[in-house]
Amino acid sequence: MPDTITPVALGLRERKKLKTKESIQREAMRLFQEQGYDETTIEQIAAAAEISPSTFFNYFPTKEDVVLYDRYDPVMVSLIEGAPPDEPLSQTIKRALEGLGGAMEPDRQMVLARAKLGIQAPTLRARFWEELQKAQSLLGGLIAMRTGRDADDFEVRVLSMMLVTAAFEAAQEWLRRGGEGALFDIVKEALQVSGVFDRLDALGSGRAR
Amino acid sequence: MPDTITPVALGLRERKKLKTKESIQREAMRLFQEQGYDETTIEQIAAAAEISPSTFFNYFPTKEDVVLYDRYDPVMVSLIEGAPPDEPLSQTIKRALEGLGGAMEPDRQMVLARAKLGIQAPTLRARFWEELQKAQSLLGGLIAMRTGRDADDFEVRVLSMMLVTAAFEAAQEWLRRGGEGALFDIVKEALQVSGVFDRLDALGSGRAR
Repeated sequence: MPDTITPVALGLRERKKLKTKESIQREAMRLFQEQGYDETTIEQIAAAAEISPSTFFNYFPTKEDVVLYDRYDPVMVSLIEGAPPDEPLSQTIKRALEGLGGAMEPDRQMVLARAKLGIQAPTLRARFWEELQKAQSLLGGLIAMRTGRDADDFEVRVLSMMLVTAAFEAAQEWLRRGGEGALFDIVKEALQVSGVFDRLDALGSGRAR
Repeated sequence: MPDTITPVALGLRERKKLKTKESIQREAMRLFQEQGYDETTIEQIAAAAEISPSTFFNYFPTKEDVVLYDRYDPVMVSLIEGAPPDEPLSQTIKRALEGLGGAMEPDRQMVLARAKLGIQAPTLRARFWEELQKAQSLLGGLIAMRTGRDADDFEVRVLSMMLVTAAFEAAQEWLRRGGEGALFDIVKEALQVSGVFDRLDALGSGRAR
């Protein structure tokens, strides 16, 4: 289990842009919680983040994207890519989840607020499907890389979709429990329940089907 | 394996309404294929189905609903509900899939056209998530009934979501193969790959986790 999260290597300019993006998200989420999602304008978010409204649009095409943006995606990718290639995939994923859980802990309240809005606001729910499919292709690419399969392989797509929807069910369960406990423990539980770990390891060692 | 599909018991009036609904869907799908989804108006669908536009709205709230309506949902429910309660759930589901496959075969072209539109048309894709969650609750209710669990139980929700998304991946695979082969064989393959059958049977016999 890694002690620290290895950050994706970024130049100074990229780090600065990422910091602005995260600050916009943080201010927006604070406003959404204080006064409601629909009631908050892009002008208000820009003012709170000390940028102009046109700068806002350089970072996020719409207000919805502020909620949907996940700063942890690159962390997860680097955790999985950096794993020993002969390790069973289930181990890599469990380790990545623990790493992610640690990285998210300081932002716990914001992650909870984003999950709530993402699942409950009707405008955002409509985009969920798209977001899940993006996550599926991201994970499918990683599974393909580790198993030597094609990213478009049917089994790879089925298993990456299982991972994504199990994580989604876990987020819903976390909300049901009022944000108690660690989200990533619930994700691990969902993956265990789903049976997908065994199938992933079988795929990795060429024993699938 | 049943020789015939047991139809859900319906009165004369309900049967007549169902027939009208199916005829509207059939005419609409024909028009969508001939002239495009966006190009087809509700007036044109109503004219083709020999009803008035206001009658159309008695059956479907929007044009999207015509594509999304699945006449096989009650067939699946009755196939699962009618199964011997001590049969492993994986067996019940495999048998229901075979029954459904048989029921759908005469409508193969329309099922393919619906899958294509549902997956590829942007307006419809936005509603997919909602539809998947409806299917999840339907299946969750059946799993709960058979296992004595609560329909809201975390494991029941995870496994019913696995069933739904495996079926969705199978539909995409079927489209990729140009509609070749039987959709329900591909669904069975996806379920096999996912590992969900074993987990369902474990849940059914109280051996889960």
